[in-house]
Amino acid sequence: MRVFFSDDHKLRDARTELFGGELVSPFEAPFRAEWILAAVKEAGFRDVVAPARHGLETAAKLHAADYLEFLETAWSRWVADGYRGEAIPTSFPARRMRQHPPRDIDGALGYYAFAAETSITEGTYAAARAAMDCALSAAEHINGGAKAAFALCRPPGHHAAIDLYGGYSFINNAACAAERLRDLGAARVGVLDVDFHHGNGTQDIFYERGDVYFASLHGDPVDAFPYFLGFADEEGAGEGLGSTKNYPLPRGTEFAAWSAAMDDALHRIEAFGAEALVVSLGVDTFERDPISTFKLKSEDYLLMGERLKKAALPVVVCMEGGYGVPEIGLNVANVLKGIAS
Amino acid sequence: MRVFFSDDHKLRDARTELFGGELVSPFEAPFRAEWILAAVKEAGFRDVVAPARHGLETAAKLHAADYLEFLETAWSRWVADGYRGEAIPTSFPARRMRQHPPRDIDGALGYYAFAAETSITEGTYAAARAAMDCALSAAEHINGGAKAAFALCRPPGHHAAIDLYGGYSFINNAACAAERLRDLGAARVGVLDVDFHHGNGTQDIFYERGDVYFASLHGDPVDAFPYFLGFADEEGAGEGLGSTKNYPLPRGTEFAAWSAAMDDALHRIEAFGAEALVVSLGVDTFERDPISTFKLKSEDYLLMGERLKKAALPVVVCMEGGYGVPEIGLNVANVLKGIAS
Repeated sequence: MRVFFSDDHKLRDARTELFGGELVSPFEAPFRAEWILAAVKEAGFRDVVAPARHGLETAAKLHAADYLEFLETAWSRWVADGYRGEAIPTSFPARRMRQHPPRDIDGALGYYAFAAETSITEGTYAAARAAMDCALSAAEHINGGAKAAFALCRPPGHHAAIDLYGGYSFINNAACAAERLRDLGAARVGVLDVDFHHGNGTQDIFYERGDVYFASLHGDPVDAFPYFLGFADEEGAGEGLGSTKNYPLPRGTEFAAWSAAMDDALHRIEAFGAEALVVSLGVDTFERDPISTFKLKSEDYLLMGERLKKAALPVVVCMEGGYGVPEIGLNVANVLKGIAS
Repeated sequence: MRVFFSDDHKLRDARTELFGGELVSPFEAPFRAEWILAAVKEAGFRDVVAPARHGLETAAKLHAADYLEFLETAWSRWVADGYRGEAIPTSFPARRMRQHPPRDIDGALGYYAFAAETSITEGTYAAARAAMDCALSAAEHINGGAKAAFALCRPPGHHAAIDLYGGYSFINNAACAAERLRDLGAARVGVLDVDFHHGNGTQDIFYERGDVYFASLHGDPVDAFPYFLGFADEEGAGEGLGSTKNYPLPRGTEFAAWSAAMDDALHRIEAFGAEALVVSLGVDTFERDPISTFKLKSEDYLLMGERLKKAALPVVVCMEGGYGVPEIGLNVANVLKGIAS
C-alpha cells in the first residue's frame, strides 16, 4: 500500500491550544505524523511518496470561496493588525446574530471558526494544502488501479466544514479525496469516519448530496467535541436525505460495541452502491488517548482493518486524529496491515 | 443623584482574558469601579448606597431560565471536571450546527457564549447578581420620585443576551432596570446605549417588544466588537418593529458627529413616548481608551450629560464599559454632573 506523506506537515506547528482555560502545547503536533510514519514503515509499508502539488479546484467545489481566501490570508492579516499571539478567535456569530464576515480579522476569525482551540499560525495554510495534496494523490492512486492508499494527512481535515475551521482542521482532506474519486468516475462514494470525534465538516459538506454516503462512529456529542453535530437524527437533507448516518456512542465504548456499529455502517455503504471508500482514520478511539473516552486496544485496529478489507472496495485512508501516546503509530499500522492482509 | 454601588463587584476578578491570541490580564477589572467611585465622590456625588438584594424575578423575564441556571452553576461544574484555568469556551454551535446545550460543561460554555474573551470565575455570578441589584435599586429609586440615579454596575451587562454571555457581561443590568421601570408603571421606556460597543444583548432582549425603545451609538460592527449585531438595518421585529435604532459610526468618530447621532436617538425616544430613560453608559468612547477607536474628550462627557438632562425624563444610568485609563472616573463624573446640572 502506497503512503502519501509531505514533509510540509511540519509547517503546521502551533505553540498554543486553548484547553481548559489555559494556552497549552497543542495535542495536534508534528510528532504525531513522524511517529505514525515511523511505525508504518516499520510495519513494512515502505512505499512512501510525496504527493503531487494540486490546485484548489477540488477544494473549491466543497468549501466556500471566501473561506478558502480567508484561510490563505488570515495569518498575514492577523500579523498586520499587530497581535502578539497566534490567531485565536474571540467573537462568534451566535444565535440571532448576523451571519456575515466582518472586515476586521479578529471578527473574521470568529465568523469562520466553530472552535477556538485551533490557533492559526504562519505555516498553517501551506501545511493544510500539503495534507490536501496527500488525500488527492491517494485518490488518484487508487483510481489508477491500486486497491488501497494511505494519505498521511496532517493537519487533519474532517472537522473543516463548508466555511468553518476548528478541531485542528482547515481543508477537509477526506472530502477532497471523495470528491476526486467522483470526478475520476466513481458514481457513488462512501466516507466512513472512525475518528473518536464526529466528522462534522464532512457531514456538512455532503449533507445535501445523494452521491456521497457519510457514516460516522464517534463519542456522543452530548458530552464530546464537537458537541453541536453528530446526533443520530441527522440523516441528510434534500437529495442527500438518507445518505448520512451517525453512530453516537457512550463514554467507555469498547471494540465489541464499536465494531458492531462499524459493521452496520459498512453494510449501509455497500447498500448505497459505493464504488469506492474513503476512511477518515482517527486512532483517538484508543484506550489511552489523552482527550477521548473510548476503550479500543491496539489489536482491535488490526480487526478494524480486516473488516475494511472485507468491504471489497478500493479504499483511501486519510489520517485524522489520535494524540499523545506512541501507540498511535502502531494502531495506524495495524489498520493498514488489516486492509493489506 | 444617588449612586448604587456594591462591594461585591470585587468578586468578579478574573485573571485571564483571551486577547490577541494570548491570555492577558483582563481589561474589565475591579480597579475600574474603584476609580469611578472615587471620581464621582470627588465630583460631589456622595450619596453612595448599597443596593437592596433582589431575587431573579426581573432577570427571569428577560433571560432564559436555563441560561440563568448555567450562570449560577458554570464555575462549580467546570471545577468538578478538573480543568485548571478559568472557564473559557472553545466550541461553538456555528452555522448549520445544532442549537442546544450539551451536558458537558466545556460544551455548555460554548453554547451560552458568543465570545471567548470573558472567563467565568469563582465569584462571577455573585458579582453579576450584585450589579443587577444596583440597576434594580436605581430603577426603584427613580420610581420613588428621584430624577436620576447612577447604578455603578460591575460587571457590565449590555452584551448579555437572552441566553448568551460575553463582552464581560452576564446578566443584562440595563435591561433589568428598564423592565423594573415597566413593572413599576412606566408604560414605555427608552434605553439609550452610548457605550463604544453595540449593546447586542439589550437589543436581543427587547427586539420583538413594542414597549421598550432601544437605541445604540457604537463602533461600526464591520470592524468593531461584537461584530455580528448592531447594523443600521436592524429595526426590531414583530411588535418591536421600529423600536430598535442603531447608529454604527466609523473609527475615529469625534463628538460633533457622535452628539448629532445622540440627538437623533433622543428625539426618537421622545417620539416613542418613553416615560423613563435607561442609559447604558460606557466611557470607552474616550480618545485614549485602550480597546476602542472613538475620539471623545473628557469635556464632551459634560455636554453628553447636559443633553441627557434636556430629555426631561427620569433617568437610570447603568455603568457599562470604559477601560485602562484613570480618566474613566472623570468622564463618568462629567456625565453625572451634566445630568444633575
